[in-house]
This record gives sequence, structure tokens and C-alpha cells, in this order.
Amino acid sequence: MPHLNRLKRVKKIIESKDVDCLLFSDISNIYYISHFKGFEGVLLIIPKDGTSELYVPKLEYERALEESENVNINVYSESLEQAIKDFIGKLKCKKIGLPYFKTSLWLANKLSKISQEIKLEDISKEIMEVRAIKDIDEVEAIKKAVKITEKGFDEALNILSEGVRELDVAAKIEYTFKVNGSYEVAFPCIVASGRNSALPHATASEKTIRRGEIVVVDIGAKYMGYCGDLTRTISLGSVSSKLKDIFYAVLEAQKEAIRKIKPGIKASEVDAAARNVLKEYGYDKFFTHSTGHGIGIEVHEYPRLSNKSNATLKTGMVVTVEPGVYIRDLGGIRIEDDVLVTDSGYVILSTYPKDLIE
Amino acid sequence: MPHLNRLKRVKKIIESKDVDCLLFSDISNIYYISHFKGFEGVLLIIPKDGTSELYVPKLEYERALEESENVNINVYSESLEQAIKDFIGKLKCKKIGLPYFKTSLWLANKLSKISQEIKLEDISKEIMEVRAIKDIDEVEAIKKAVKITEKGFDEALNILSEGVRELDVAAKIEYTFKVNGSYEVAFPCIVASGRNSALPHATASEKTIRRGEIVVVDIGAKYMGYCGDLTRTISLGSVSSKLKDIFYAVLEAQKEAIRKIKPGIKASEVDAAARNVLKEYGYDKFFTHSTGHGIGIEVHEYPRLSNKSNATLKTGMVVTVEPGVYIRDLGGIRIEDDVLVTDSGYVILSTYPKDLIE
Repeated sequence: MPHLNRLKRVKKIIESKDVDCLLFSDISNIYYISHFKGFEGVLLIIPKDGTSELYVPKLEYERALEESENVNINVYSESLEQAIKDFIGKLKCKKIGLPYFKTSLWLANKLSKISQEIKLEDISKEIMEVRAIKDIDEVEAIKKAVKITEKGFDEALNILSEGVRELDVAAKIEYTFKVNGSYEVAFPCIVASGRNSALPHATASEKTIRRGEIVVVDIGAKYMGYCGDLTRTISLGSVSSKLKDIFYAVLEAQKEAIRKIKPGIKASEVDAAARNVLKEYGYDKFFTHSTGHGIGIEVHEYPRLSNKSNATLKTGMVVTVEPGVYIRDLGGIRIEDDVLVTDSGYVILSTYPKDLIE
Repeated sequence: MPHLNRLKRVKKIIESKDVDCLLFSDISNIYYISHFKGFEGVLLIIPKDGTSELYVPKLEYERALEESENVNINVYSESLEQAIKDFIGKLKCKKIGLPYFKTSLWLANKLSKISQEIKLEDISKEIMEVRAIKDIDEVEAIKKAVKITEKGFDEALNILSEGVRELDVAAKIEYTFKVNGSYEVAFPCIVASGRNSALPHATASEKTIRRGEIVVVDIGAKYMGYCGDLTRTISLGSVSSKLKDIFYAVLEAQKEAIRKIKPGIKASEVDAAARNVLKEYGYDKFFTHSTGHGIGIEVHEYPRLSNKSNATLKTGMVVTVEPGVYIRDLGGIRIEDDVLVTDSGYVILSTYPKDLIE
């Protein structure tokens, strides 16, 4: 049922964009609509009327049969290129809606060559907006991913000690994710200690962690294809008063931004709330990224909580709130939660303590 | 130096395709050329003369500075869209070569809007061919990835016992990869037991492994961004004589295919060698995929060892050789090695035993 509802919501794009059919070739949109966890070389066509058609290579037939919902499965034995000529050419779609962000120029080129009458139309914005509003099953999957992610912090605290490498901590966290039912990570675990913590996109290196260092742990399990994404900043022993000062400024900024969340508020206002708190403390110029982003099948989804965003929050969206301050040669602090927008405001999906864990 | 050599080899595409510059927007090509492990929103422009230009969001500047080689780093503070207008628009490139497979229709559309004079040219084939020939550093990275992958089999054998879940085995393997310096997996570990082994693209489930079952373990560590990709089939206790018969047929097919490898042979001939052995045993119709594929920064690279391939093997290519037989309700067998093509023939990069491990 949930996938049927998703398909129905996606189908509305056909009318709103006035196209004949929709075509998806990327793994995340295909999973969203059909529940098939595809690899490369899979196409999903959704016509205005009639059944949706999934095209898979022979190798994937059994799995498609087992996993997919609400679609008719077509197997191609030759190449995807041949499948496009054979199948897509026969469809009466002239105006095809597809997400430009998620479609290769190769595919677009092949489609254009079928007939001069074929016109392509970008539906990136529309499909992002549909996917931004999570249904109950999606929220449950994200909640489970968040719970598994929290187990990762427990493990991190268990293993964190003088002389342990960032990599060892990350390895233990990912092990914990997997044995708890997270088949893949949302992204490779970030365990960034000392100076490394000043790089927002550091991962986990062979550097050993020393007493008195700050450790940014930014991790996300996946459950049933949906991502969690949490950050806690841990200190190994006592850290400098300057870092503590930054920590409490970031924590206040994060809490203030979360408090703003409700249906109807602009994403840019949530971003501004975090940024203003950091401004009061004089740290705003070290806050070099946006306050958050939607999560779902992908770890970065619509909407982005940034000062450039035009998005408005709506009930059913799940967003991260993750202000951070990064000072070269000193270190970085980031605190991140996943927040569900509800009719009455918000629910924080993670209950893990956020105080500086020493 | 190695990256400079790669850049030089890539630059030759400018002449051969008669374009003004090359443009890359995908993570793997950007890493190949510049050693920068990018995220989304990064562009690399290689002009005929002068320096190559990397465009990164502000957030990535520090990391780009640390990691990248042979490129000039440009930071954009607004969106990538704005960066395209600002920077790319100023370049005198009219004919831009880019890999259609790895370029989004969104980017192509933005480029076309800069000026009507801009023409796009597909260089997918050319860049794939350049990347297929590995230099010494790349071969060394793959060798290291293969060594780490082999440690994963040791761990699998340690933990494999009656009642253990596929997931537990996969988790332990990935843990071993990470603590040995593999920051990411080449792909989530496949541990497919019993009936699950009949699905070539099964991953690792919560199914417990039972005595008498066959277990396909298809795993790959990554080292310095380069992938290993090995498969061993393990039996927990004694398996049926039918499965043993299939095992030895697959092993013979794999060895026969490897023996064919040398510069100048067609990829399709290597595929045929494996297929012919399986035909002798009557299992060829259960061999539902191609015999192998190139590996490198991506786990699936050019060339594909299939009956449809027109590729010819050349010195410096690294390919997998992995025939498999999959029989529904009975199980599957796959054996896979990574093989370097050398002037005198081939070198198998993995020394791990391939006999049926009981």
C-alpha cells in the first residue's frame, strides 16, 4: 500500500507538468516508487494511464520479481541502449518528464534519437517535493535508522580512549550498525579528532586520538533504505575553555533552530535562527555550511535549511539541524539531530544526550 | 607525478575529439585526474592550454587545498548554477567534451543556456579507455585493496559457523577492512548462503547459515580510492555432490578464462572461454552474467568481459574474472579473481586459495 500511495503522488506530476509519461533511471527514485533496489541499467516508466513498466537486465529479474511493487517487469537481454529502442520507442510518450538532476546526458541523448517529436521536461523540483513529505512507513524506517545510529554512539563511547585511531572507532560503529540490521551506511562514518574536527567533511583517518581532544562523530545508519544522520561532539578528557565556549554556543544555536520548526516556516528562517545565536557569540563567520537538509532514501534531500533556500517546511518533512563552528588549527564542533515536522510543530527523532560527553 | 601523467593522458582527448576543453562533474573522474575526493557540486575544467580549474563550494576549500594536485582551486560562494554562469561563461570554450554517462542532464542544460554557440561532445568512451590502463601507482593501490580484501576471507572463515547470520559475517568483514585502512567498501559485502546464493546480486541478510549450505562471499575493500573485488565460495560442512560438481565446473571455467588473458585478446574471447567450459558440463544456461569487468576507482569499469564487448585487452588493464552458476532453489557458485594484464600475459593479484573451503 505505501508504495501505491507514493506512485499515486508521483503520478500527479504527469498532470501538473503536462507530460505523457515520467521516466526514472536513478536508484533512489526507482526504489521510492517501486521498492526495487536497482543497480545500474534499470528504467522505470510511469504512463498517464495503465501500468508502470520496470525494465531490468536479465541478471536482476529474480530480485525485481521478489522486491518490486505495482510495476510490470520487463527483462532486456541485450543492452539498455537496445531496450530503449525496442521498448521506449514503442510507447506513445512524446513529452517525457524526467528529473534532470538524476538523468544522465547519455540517456537523454538516446531518447532524443528515438524520434524528433520527443520532448524532455525537467521534473527535478516536483519529484523532490513529493519525496520531501514522508509517509508513515518512511518515518518509521527513519526512526529505526536513528535508533541504530544511536547504538553507534554507545559503541563510540565504549571504545574511545587515548591512542585509539579514528578509524578503529568508525569501524566499530559501522560493525554495530550492520549487526543491528543496517545493511549499508548512509555515508562512511565521520570520526574527526583534534585538528581534523575543523574539516566539516573529514571522514575517519589513521590518526590516533589524544587526551584533551575534541572528537566530532557524524554517523548515519540506514534501515530499509532510509537514512539516519546524527552528530555528537565528544571530548576525551577535559578540553580547553575556548572549545567549551564554542560547544555551548553551537548547542544553543542548534536548540534555537529546532524550536523554530513548524509547518509554514521558511527553511531560511530556521537557518537564520542558528546563525543569529552564533553571531551573538561571535562565531558566525566560522559556520561555513547550511543548518540542515532533508533526509530520506538519500542522506541529502530537499529541503535545504540554508539562507538561500526558498522552501517552506511542511508536515511530514524530516530534516537535520546541524550547526557547526570550524576554526583552523583549533578544531570544530557540530551537533546534529533529525527532526520530523508535525502539525503541532516538531518531534526530535533522536533522544541521545547532546551535552559535551567527557 | 602520477596525477600529472593521468592529466596528460586525459588531455589528449581534447585533440582526438577536437574540442576546446573537457569538463568533469562526477566524483570518480575528478578523483582520477586531480586526486580530490569531491562530493556533489564540484566541477573540473581542463582547457587545451593553461591550468586546469577545479570549482568547489566554500565548505570544501580546505580539503581541496590539501588533497588536489595540478589544478587551480576556485571557490564559489553562491550556487553551482551561479558558478557555471560566472566562471564557465567566461571561458572561451565553445566545444566542450564531457562524459555523457557521468554528466547530468541538468548540467548539460545549464551549459547550453550560457550561449547558443556551446556544443557538447560525448567523451564517455575515450575517458573510459584512458582509465582502463592503470599506471604503477594505481596497480599498487589495487594490490593493496586486494590484500585487505583477502583479510576479509580470513575473518569470514573465523566467524562462519552454524547459526551465524549472513549479516554478522558481512559486518565482521567490513570491520576488518576498515581497521586495515580501507576507509570505504568497494560495495556492501555479499554473503549469500543456501538459496540466497542463487541470486547473483544478493547482499547479506538476517538469514542464519546452516550446516550443509554453500556460502558465496563476494567482497571488496578500497584502498586509496581503488577497489578490490574477490569472490570465494565456502561450504559449511559437506555439501551435496551436485553443488560440488558445479563448483569444480565453475573453478575450471574461471581458470580457463584467466589462462586466455594477454594483450591483444578480445574481451569476448575470455568470456567465451569460461562459457565453453560451463557448456561442456551443461551449466552454461545458468551462467547469467558476463565473465568480468575492469576495476579501478569504480568497481565496474571498462572493459566488460562479455560476449557483446568489442574491447581488446591491453597491458595495464585490471579485470575481474568471475564466472558463476545460479540454480533456483539449489544455490549458486561464483569464484572471482582480479587479474592484471601484463606484456607477457597476466598476473593474478589475489593469492587466496580458491578450492571449496569446507
